[in-house]
Amino acid sequence: MSDTLQRLAELIETRKLAQGGDPEKSYIARLFAKGDDAILKKIGEEATETVMAAKDARVDGNTAALVGECADLWFHTLVMLAQFNLTPQMVLDELARREGMSGIEEKAARKDVLRDKAEQSAKS
Amino acid sequence: MSDTLQRLAELIETRKLAQGGDPEKSYIARLFAKGDDAILKKIGEEATETVMAAKDARVDGNTAALVGECADLWFHTLVMLAQFNLTPQMVLDELARREGMSGIEEKAARKDVLRDKAEQSAKS
Amino acid sequence: MSDTLQRLAELIETRKLAQGGDPEKSYIARLFAKGDDAILKKIGEEATETVMAAKDARVDGNTAALVGECADLWFHTLVMLAQFNLTPQMVLDELARREGMSGIEEKAARKDVLRDKAEQSAKS
Amino acid sequence: MSDTLQRLAELIETRKLAQGGDPEKSYIARLFAKGDDAILKKIGEEATETVMAAKDARVDGNTAALVGECADLWFHTLVMLAQFNLTPQMVLDELARREGMSGIEEKAARKDVLRDKAEQSAKS
Repeated sequence: MSDTLQRLAELIETRKLAQGGDPEKSYIARLFAKGDDAILKKIGEEATETVMAAKDARVDGNTAALVGECADLWFHTLVMLAQFNLTPQMVLDELARREGMSGIEEKAARKDVLRDKAEQSAKS
Repeated sequence: MSDTLQRLAELIETRKLAQGGDPEKSYIARLFAKGDDAILKKIGEEATETVMAAKDARVDGNTAALVGECADLWFHTLVMLAQFNLTPQMVLDELARREGMSGIEEKAARKDVLRDKAEQSAKS
Repeated sequence: MSDTLQRLAELIETRKLAQGGDPEKSYIARLFAKGDDAILKKIGEEATETVMAAKDARVDGNTAALVGECADLWFHTLVMLAQFNLTPQMVLDELARREGMSGIEEKAARKDVLRDKAEQSAKS
Repeated sequence: MSDTLQRLAELIETRKLAQGGDPEKSYIARLFAKGDDAILKKIGEEATETVMAAKDARVDGNTAALVGECADLWFHTLVMLAQFNLTPQMVLDELARREGMSGIEEKAARKDVLRDKAEQSAKS
């Protein structure tokens, strides 16, 4: 599909303080300087902004803003992965692994259907 | 890097009800059947679980769980994008566009540095 | 228990721009000047910070920080309620109403137990 | 204002497993049986649902749903406080303490104004 994630991950690596990243010049280096909580807080923030942009898109049709917020969310997950010395490839591998386990979606669905039947029976 | 995202997006498309997706058999079709809020709620949930897994990883070193939660978060953003007839490529294009705008990170950093100086001056 | 919530809600009302709230002098007036999304974004942020403080409290025993983050979260829900011309009393009334509906917790629990049995059966 | 929070906190205490709370009969006892992460996940979930209900309220005027989601959020923060052997009174005391520190809002506002000026200067 693209090696944008790979290139971004490499760029982010160069912003680590140990790699010479400069918090005065780089937003990413600045996040690394602040540490775990500042980065994780951004995950919560960007997830909330993505949800709000999606609600707005239903009203005003502005899907570009939703794409932008989703990009912000993915970007900050890349910074988080780097902070823990992980890579986007690991996440893609995990997604591919699940995709290959063909039974898993059906199993999840079956569980979900049973759950809904349980909810209906409990409500009655 | 990989076309996992592309393949996943195509799989998700086939689960739309209009494409014959069956909520009895597919977890994804089930999310589509429930609609926007059920999907967006998952974004908030998975973001929270990602943050918790990151906090845990600092204590117990279990980064595999963090990768798994991040995969869950990305997966549900793919479902959200499909729900709004958007694609992961659009998000990657937006990320690439920003990467190309070389000044943007420095500008963001400069703003951030000014902000911190403002905070220090306000605290004094 | 306390009328702290009531007094805070009254203070917050006075910060509305229509009541003479001044964004140059008041953080709350500033949130009102920014509008819905700025206030809602704070709900997402403070919820994430509460979750992180709780994870930290298990490691370092610092429950004072958790109380502080929970106070931040409640405070910003009060600002949100005011933004929608609602009051904390309405939320307390809703909580009291549920408390009075004695069957509701048992029903929720029964549903939950059935759901777990469904999950176990689906996993097997 | 009300002792609803106090009464709810007392009810929640009785649902702790050590107090005889029964996960088969009580939703709250069930959350306690699942532990920290299940409770914290609910904070993230209910915060997201509150944000979505607020966005909806601007479109359809359904503020009752927003009050309901806010009640859910507060309720689950009470369960979290109990899980950490904390009380809502501690949160209210913290809010009252801040209210008494009259300078704090003005300081926050001054910091915020400086930050916005910094942002404008960085954008220019």
